Amino acid sequence: MSVRFPQSMQKLIRELTKLPTIGEKSATRLAYHLIQNDRKLAGTLSEAMQRAAEDVKLCEKCYALTDTQECQICQDDRRDQTTICIVEKPMDLLAIERVAEYRGLYHVLHGVWAPLRGMGPESMKLEELVSRVKDGEVSEAILATSSTVEGDATALYISRILEEMGVNTTRLAQGMPKGGELEYADEVTLSRAFSGRIRLG
Amino acid sequence: MSVRFPQSMQKLIRELTKLPTIGEKSATRLAYHLIQNDRKLAGTLSEAMQRAAEDVKLCEKCYALTDTQECQICQDDRRDQTTICIVEKPMDLLAIERVAEYRGLYHVLHGVWAPLRGMGPESMKLEELVSRVKDGEVSEAILATSSTVEGDATALYISRILEEMGVNTTRLAQGMPKGGELEYADEVTLSRAFSGRIRLG
Repeated sequence: MSVRFPQSMQKLIRELTKLPTIGEKSATRLAYHLIQNDRKLAGTLSEAMQRAAEDVKLCEKCYALTDTQECQICQDDRRDQTTICIVEKPMDLLAIERVAEYRGLYHVLHGVWAPLRGMGPESMKLEELVSRVKDGEVSEAILATSSTVEGDATALYISRILEEMGVNTTRLAQGMPKGGELEYADEVTLSRAFSGRIRLG
Repeated sequence: MSVRFPQSMQKLIRELTKLPTIGEKSATRLAYHLIQNDRKLAGTLSEAMQRAAEDVKLCEKCYALTDTQECQICQDDRRDQTTICIVEKPMDLLAIERVAEYRGLYHVLHGVWAPLRGMGPESMKLEELVSRVKDGEVSEAILATSSTVEGDATALYISRILEEMGVNTTRLAQGMPKGGELEYADEVTLSRAFSGRIRLG
């Protein structure tokens, strides 16, 4: 008879490992923390989880996270309705908003085109983007997917579709990050920084 | 007006960051996963959390995690009642049980003596250990706290108390781990492996 954690603890560990980046070791530590040091947290956390799962919806227009029908940005008339910035995740949208330079709208894909991981075009809010462009007044799309292989492929894929629809598409510049030392730059970054070099003065 | 996640999502992120090793970035990713890909998980996980917080208790004798009054090990008459192995966490107990060599009982401290982190003797189940030894038939204690500074200090601290009570105390051997290459061993490990060297043949 081997010794194990109580059933309900094992169950909690199994559920926790379903979260991304949480392996069995981390799940066990988290479960122990919830049970041992901080039973109150188990209550408030599970409540917050259920509340968020009920409350948070996707904006009907741009698919950002929202608790209203349309998100804060889509409701804002002062934003440029002719430009949309296309991002993979809601976190990317927030990162761009923190810079506070962009004044257009967004479209959140909630996915990428990653055929090697079995994720085709249907794994992102692409049809929704196309019909939004068809119906609306969008004239420019900025492809702000990640600078990864999948992000690049997604950007290329979408830009072809949008260009055919008469939308100007641009991609975020790629090159050396601010503060980046040449010595430690990877080859792709360096090569892109070269090919995208700009004239000074 | 800065753009933010919906209130309930922000709340969920705040609650998640109260877990050990979860920073704001990880919490945001976890919250997004719970809300976006897998709302069902939000339900089952929060249920498992509440269930475990209600069900799991500490064994009245050894303070291992249990859902009965006394844990499986303390209930087992075939185990040697005169020897207790003292560990920091329930996970350590399971690690020792997996080796399946030890046949005595346990005592789980649920803490260490770590004065630099403001954790004194009262932060572990030490009084409970002392009264257990006082009442019982324990003649040997194996100090299986971690091989860290805090674990060593805890072992030393407890061994002095137990020795005064007439209990033989031993500490787990310290030295080279199996498969460890000398070249990469840290100085303390190497020094302990030297001072604890044993005669061959």
